[in-house]
Amino acid sequence: MRLSQLFTKTSKNIPSDETARSARLLIQAGYIHKEMAGAYAYLPLGLAVIDNIKTIIRKEMDELGASELLMTTMQSKDLWQKTDRWDDQKVDIWFKTELKNGTTVGLAWSHEEPIVAMMKDYLSSYRDLPVAVYQFQNKLRNELRAKSGILRGREFLMKDLYAFSTSAEELQDFYDRVSDAYMRIFAAVGLGNDTYLTYASGGAFTQFSHEFQTVTEIGEDTIYLSKARRLAVNKEVYKDDVLAQLGLNKEDLEEMKAAEVGNIFNFGSTKSEQLGVTFTDQSGHEKPVYLSSYGIGISRLMGVIAEHFADDKGLVWPTAVAPAQVHLIRLGEASQVVKQADKLYSSLTAAHVSVLYDDRDERAGKKFADADLIGIPNRVLVSDKTVNDVSYEWKSRTSDESELMSEEQLLKTLAIKD
Amino acid sequence: MRLSQLFTKTSKNIPSDETARSARLLIQAGYIHKEMAGAYAYLPLGLAVIDNIKTIIRKEMDELGASELLMTTMQSKDLWQKTDRWDDQKVDIWFKTELKNGTTVGLAWSHEEPIVAMMKDYLSSYRDLPVAVYQFQNKLRNELRAKSGILRGREFLMKDLYAFSTSAEELQDFYDRVSDAYMRIFAAVGLGNDTYLTYASGGAFTQFSHEFQTVTEIGEDTIYLSKARRLAVNKEVYKDDVLAQLGLNKEDLEEMKAAEVGNIFNFGSTKSEQLGVTFTDQSGHEKPVYLSSYGIGISRLMGVIAEHFADDKGLVWPTAVAPAQVHLIRLGEASQVVKQADKLYSSLTAAHVSVLYDDRDERAGKKFADADLIGIPNRVLVSDKTVNDVSYEWKSRTSDESELMSEEQLLKTLAIKD
Repeated sequence: MRLSQLFTKTSKNIPSDETARSARLLIQAGYIHKEMAGAYAYLPLGLAVIDNIKTIIRKEMDELGASELLMTTMQSKDLWQKTDRWDDQKVDIWFKTELKNGTTVGLAWSHEEPIVAMMKDYLSSYRDLPVAVYQFQNKLRNELRAKSGILRGREFLMKDLYAFSTSAEELQDFYDRVSDAYMRIFAAVGLGNDTYLTYASGGAFTQFSHEFQTVTEIGEDTIYLSKARRLAVNKEVYKDDVLAQLGLNKEDLEEMKAAEVGNIFNFGSTKSEQLGVTFTDQSGHEKPVYLSSYGIGISRLMGVIAEHFADDKGLVWPTAVAPAQVHLIRLGEASQVVKQADKLYSSLTAAHVSVLYDDRDERAGKKFADADLIGIPNRVLVSDKTVNDVSYEWKSRTSDESELMSEEQLLKTLAIKD
Repeated sequence: MRLSQLFTKTSKNIPSDETARSARLLIQAGYIHKEMAGAYAYLPLGLAVIDNIKTIIRKEMDELGASELLMTTMQSKDLWQKTDRWDDQKVDIWFKTELKNGTTVGLAWSHEEPIVAMMKDYLSSYRDLPVAVYQFQNKLRNELRAKSGILRGREFLMKDLYAFSTSAEELQDFYDRVSDAYMRIFAAVGLGNDTYLTYASGGAFTQFSHEFQTVTEIGEDTIYLSKARRLAVNKEVYKDDVLAQLGLNKEDLEEMKAAEVGNIFNFGSTKSEQLGVTFTDQSGHEKPVYLSSYGIGISRLMGVIAEHFADDKGLVWPTAVAPAQVHLIRLGEASQVVKQADKLYSSLTAAHVSVLYDDRDERAGKKFADADLIGIPNRVLVSDKTVNDVSYEWKSRTSDESELMSEEQLLKTLAIKD
């Protein structure tokens, strides 16, 4: 991508209506645009990060044997009434709207009910189970306050996975597999070291539910963390009896601010019973299906990554999610400089290395500041100096030292960074 | 994809609440699931078709130099009031909802206003223009009736492209380029022969707007078609003076039912003036930006393709949009049959040929009927007979004749079909 072709521009103005550093930087660097409080458009650079996160997650979902689908935003009132989750007193984040004929419909904040109801049409025998489906879908939640940028939006992108099992044991087995897959996902996006499986209070069916919490100052949650055991408990379950049960001592736990990046719910057979979804087991008995659901807030995850790695110069993206691998800066308009930079842009692109190419006629200071703000992991400079040297000047986003190197060395360096 | 792993099932029951053949077949074959009137979930096979259509469109958008982004569903009332499109009397398909603080927000049926307003932050000089952005986004439209399945939904997937130009001439140039790109898209999805650039009534700014209409019995529009000239006029502009202007004679025109698969709007500088989006031209004068917008209903296009090619046995997908290239049927559970079928599945997959593999223990009749209903272009059969022959039985979805061939011949046949 050529910066001269990218319609977004970096801005020096710090958005005064954003308290989260991630939101300020993502807006200033042109990744997102605020449409209203809690609702952000994803601009080309932002969409590239979202797509990279989706690719990482999709790989793990496929390995779990889950099939991708896409449910609707509009949801039926009848369905959610059957499970007693329609009433605004019970679920206080509903957005609702009305059809022309006066029928009220809900706008998707989650999909357990519609997915369970749909499965009625496809599940009948134990031979149809287990089955798991997932989607990347735009959720709407009527949050009272929306103040952390894309960390808590009224509109946000979510990966939600729903699994149907024949028994509590089969459910638990899948639950454990997803839990492992989630840790691989958080590791792949660069948050592995700071993301902890966290015990939270359970529902009617289980003592605990689980969250995945990333330690970050801007987090809205408080967790009590055992770094040694690599697990945490949240505030709800930070009680003597629970800690004893988990073999944790208060004095070993650190109180930390954290953001929830993933969650797991075990619904047991409750929803299937409410919605009448059953299967026939091997001995011909009709039984309710067991449901578990697994969420990752894609846009929130992008915000947490931004928040976590940013420094005083701007964003710092881990390689796996960066909108490009290389930020190529051309300094000057001399024909030899243009020629060398264009050539490198072509050869990197041909080698499937994604490049953001700053081919603008701008001052060096502006170009360097933009590269730091945008936060792509590798910066490569082409200038009079490098042309005379037949070399390229490479610098990591997180280092102040640059190195002159040949194209061959550069390709090797970039491959190592991948 | 193995059919034994696919949770959807084909159904012999014709949905009684669907009048459109495409909706009935897509539901029976497991491509879509009706959530409520006018709102359909996309199941794995359906999502694969949608993704193929998106790939075809994305290629053309990229060639136009347009950048992909993703706007929000929630939209600001203030913005649409400024252009006088908020009032339900003016735009009768709004869905609206309310934030907790009582603020009413609109739910996206289009994005001209938000995109123009956003561009205010990035456009200032003639050097920033022209620029074009597009998205694949879920639209909500409060249609009074929703009776044609995914041909007219209350919720549907759309590709919308917005272009900003410095002048009416520059706008027209881009308009013509998009018009050509649209014809390539409709040709690529298989509808080229039956899709016509159609003159419709213009707005304040231009005498005509343009639609792309595909001739189909279930279409809600009536067009008057000159096959020789490969263009049409819609009912609004089917008037003597217009026909004379376009050099068309009534007696050369055929009245046909058609479905609108694409549209183009020229807004001139009206919206930019209403929303205050200007740029400074080369001589330092401030001027309003020219806006044009270009839509393709992705889910509707899928419905039109389904409608257009289906026969009495089921769906018939053109190669470019089919959810897989090969429907591989294994007949029988004998170990040699399983081995040969598994081997072919692996080698086709390795050769990047997408395969739907019917590895279920089902009767031959059921398997053949399902293959016809699902409508994948190539059917390949592995059975006792083919194992003895060391061959495969290939059949096109649209032919009754099958052919025995070696793996090498088969790969050649499939490559030719691609």
